[in-house]
Amino acid sequence: MRTQVAIVGAGPAGLLLSHLLSLRGVDSVVVENRSRAYVEARIRAGVLEQDTVDLLVASGLGDRLREHGMRHDGIHLQWPGERHRIDFRALTGRSVWIYGQTEVVKDLLGVRGDDVWFEVTDTALHDVDTDRPRLSFVDAEGTPRVVQADVVVGADGFHGVSRPTIPAGRAWEREYPYAWLGILAEVPPSTDELIYAWHPRGFAMHSMRSPRLSRLYLQVAPGERVEDWSDDRIWDELGVRLGLDGWSLGTGPIVDKGVTPMRSFVSTPMRHGRLFLVGDAAHIVPPTGAKGLNLAVADVAVLTEALGAFFAEGRTDLLDGYEDRALRRVWRCTHFSWWMTSMLHTSGDELDQQLQLAQLAYVCSSEAAATSLAENYVGLPHDTGHTA
Amino acid sequence: MRTQVAIVGAGPAGLLLSHLLSLRGVDSVVVENRSRAYVEARIRAGVLEQDTVDLLVASGLGDRLREHGMRHDGIHLQWPGERHRIDFRALTGRSVWIYGQTEVVKDLLGVRGDDVWFEVTDTALHDVDTDRPRLSFVDAEGTPRVVQADVVVGADGFHGVSRPTIPAGRAWEREYPYAWLGILAEVPPSTDELIYAWHPRGFAMHSMRSPRLSRLYLQVAPGERVEDWSDDRIWDELGVRLGLDGWSLGTGPIVDKGVTPMRSFVSTPMRHGRLFLVGDAAHIVPPTGAKGLNLAVADVAVLTEALGAFFAEGRTDLLDGYEDRALRRVWRCTHFSWWMTSMLHTSGDELDQQLQLAQLAYVCSSEAAATSLAENYVGLPHDTGHTA
Repeated sequence: MRTQVAIVGAGPAGLLLSHLLSLRGVDSVVVENRSRAYVEARIRAGVLEQDTVDLLVASGLGDRLREHGMRHDGIHLQWPGERHRIDFRALTGRSVWIYGQTEVVKDLLGVRGDDVWFEVTDTALHDVDTDRPRLSFVDAEGTPRVVQADVVVGADGFHGVSRPTIPAGRAWEREYPYAWLGILAEVPPSTDELIYAWHPRGFAMHSMRSPRLSRLYLQVAPGERVEDWSDDRIWDELGVRLGLDGWSLGTGPIVDKGVTPMRSFVSTPMRHGRLFLVGDAAHIVPPTGAKGLNLAVADVAVLTEALGAFFAEGRTDLLDGYEDRALRRVWRCTHFSWWMTSMLHTSGDELDQQLQLAQLAYVCSSEAAATSLAENYVGLPHDTGHTA
Repeated sequence: MRTQVAIVGAGPAGLLLSHLLSLRGVDSVVVENRSRAYVEARIRAGVLEQDTVDLLVASGLGDRLREHGMRHDGIHLQWPGERHRIDFRALTGRSVWIYGQTEVVKDLLGVRGDDVWFEVTDTALHDVDTDRPRLSFVDAEGTPRVVQADVVVGADGFHGVSRPTIPAGRAWEREYPYAWLGILAEVPPSTDELIYAWHPRGFAMHSMRSPRLSRLYLQVAPGERVEDWSDDRIWDELGVRLGLDGWSLGTGPIVDKGVTPMRSFVSTPMRHGRLFLVGDAAHIVPPTGAKGLNLAVADVAVLTEALGAFFAEGRTDLLDGYEDRALRRVWRCTHFSWWMTSMLHTSGDELDQQLQLAQLAYVCSSEAAATSLAENYVGLPHDTGHTA
């Protein structure tokens, strides 16, 4: 097979890149080792930055998003006895949108699904440091395949094959001493906007996916077994940590339950020859700042512009600038996600607890501090280097 | 002896309290275990918040301050290859003043010095949980003395006798894994405003005391011996860490040299019966945010108002509110000092270094983040609870 861009991974990053390239008349092939059903059902992030929404809408994927997405103009920050709203709209003029990654993937599969090779095995990259890189894999029927491409993009996540293809890279990593126990429950959310709650027993969060579907999280130990958390135990603990006089938490059937580790990870380079990494393949943030998906989309936005200029005009300057441009945002979001995580999760250290409470009280009382949180949460504008 | 307020400690906090009380016609006695010469020569902080300056000026201590103090409208933040200014005046409308603690103490001794008992020993507090507290000590001539007072104030620092007098207190403490090697040098400052420099070899800072006297600091290990740092070694290291193309560091005779540990410490309660703690007796911050002296002055401002109302009108509500009012500021400053310290000192962890650099780049590019630093640095307004 011959294509212009071979893409490893049919998560939101790989699918979005393939879609945006197709709108520019650039061919791509996407391979994915999971099944279509798995990819479609996988539950992940749910908060989209305004720029992410704008990009999806501008590329023709706005119909279901406009119908089902919920615009949120702020979040609530809470600690025992106090709940404060951070008003994004008033502070920054921008908002975020609640629309599950699952839905984004469904929308993307609607336009690109038939061109994805699902359930492939033995994916390997070859000659990425030449201008004739190749991608080999075995398809779902067991037939070996080779894709000859001009550019290969690794959108295959933290555990994918693309990153290890790059020699002599450098990585920064931290595993946090806590994890998130997340549930999806069939109950209308008990809040209009997300609640981020600091509590001496650990962080808790009330999010949502739709007017009838709530998403909630509890800070737990990293090795926590989901089997040890009965539905009753989960609701009880959420009730304690999210509790506030005059407010009550609605409960309902729990339809999904899982423990997610928390990690900060940045790997460089993000480009080696004709191989470019996007999203989780190059960097992971803990989920507290809702940045993972948005950061992947930002990588894709920058890379699309660069690949567009390369294929249309033979320009290589934007490709050469991809890494620097992407990394500036990566480190900003890595810092913000670490900061939100560190402010809200309890470690057992008593001075840290007081520092966290002082920080929270300050963020909720200083316009400058609240604006700083807000401008990071709604997301800095995409910098694609586009010179129209 | 009989007095209204017995004050332990003739540092800036104890002397200022004695001075402000005298302006309200409230008697006080101050005891100090060091000599007057020692107290007068002790080199400490050098940055005064606007509210600190306003209080000193309003209490008649503005003459030398106005003549020798230097108003600074910002600071410089630096990391290798970059130096950025944070413009306090533009961001907050406020400034800070460079005027050494040594000078403040000289001004205070000018009005209160003759009433201080220096070089006392065996200082002890008695019956502070009654309304007839007493202070006993042995004076410089070896004569035992007892002061009968209405209120006792502990302004005797971290190692003083006052705090241990309070039973069943609670404390939060952290010793940082680094210290400051500070020098005073007879050379005009090479900068118009303070430089805070992040460097992979460790934090460095260029401060000043006068147009002819520079004060500089190097991050060193906590156990570092000052004897291991020759003048040449100090200037070389400062040159490296503060280095910037097109800028050079002037050197000169080093007239003082010392290693200061870095500690965060908060103790409660700050009040027990008729005993009140102010300044370092109740809390210590690392020096990075220049908050220690200003926080002591804020405690004194709040306590002066409360004692004034008590002696003039018999009101106890402000005395009862002292601790809450003081602690709000204490925790804000404890957090800010920890934050400045954590952002600027290197620990050897490579992810932390990248997070610090991302934080610094953000503070220097976001108006909200710069304002947040600035409003903390220039100081939040004193909240004395005064109801005129």
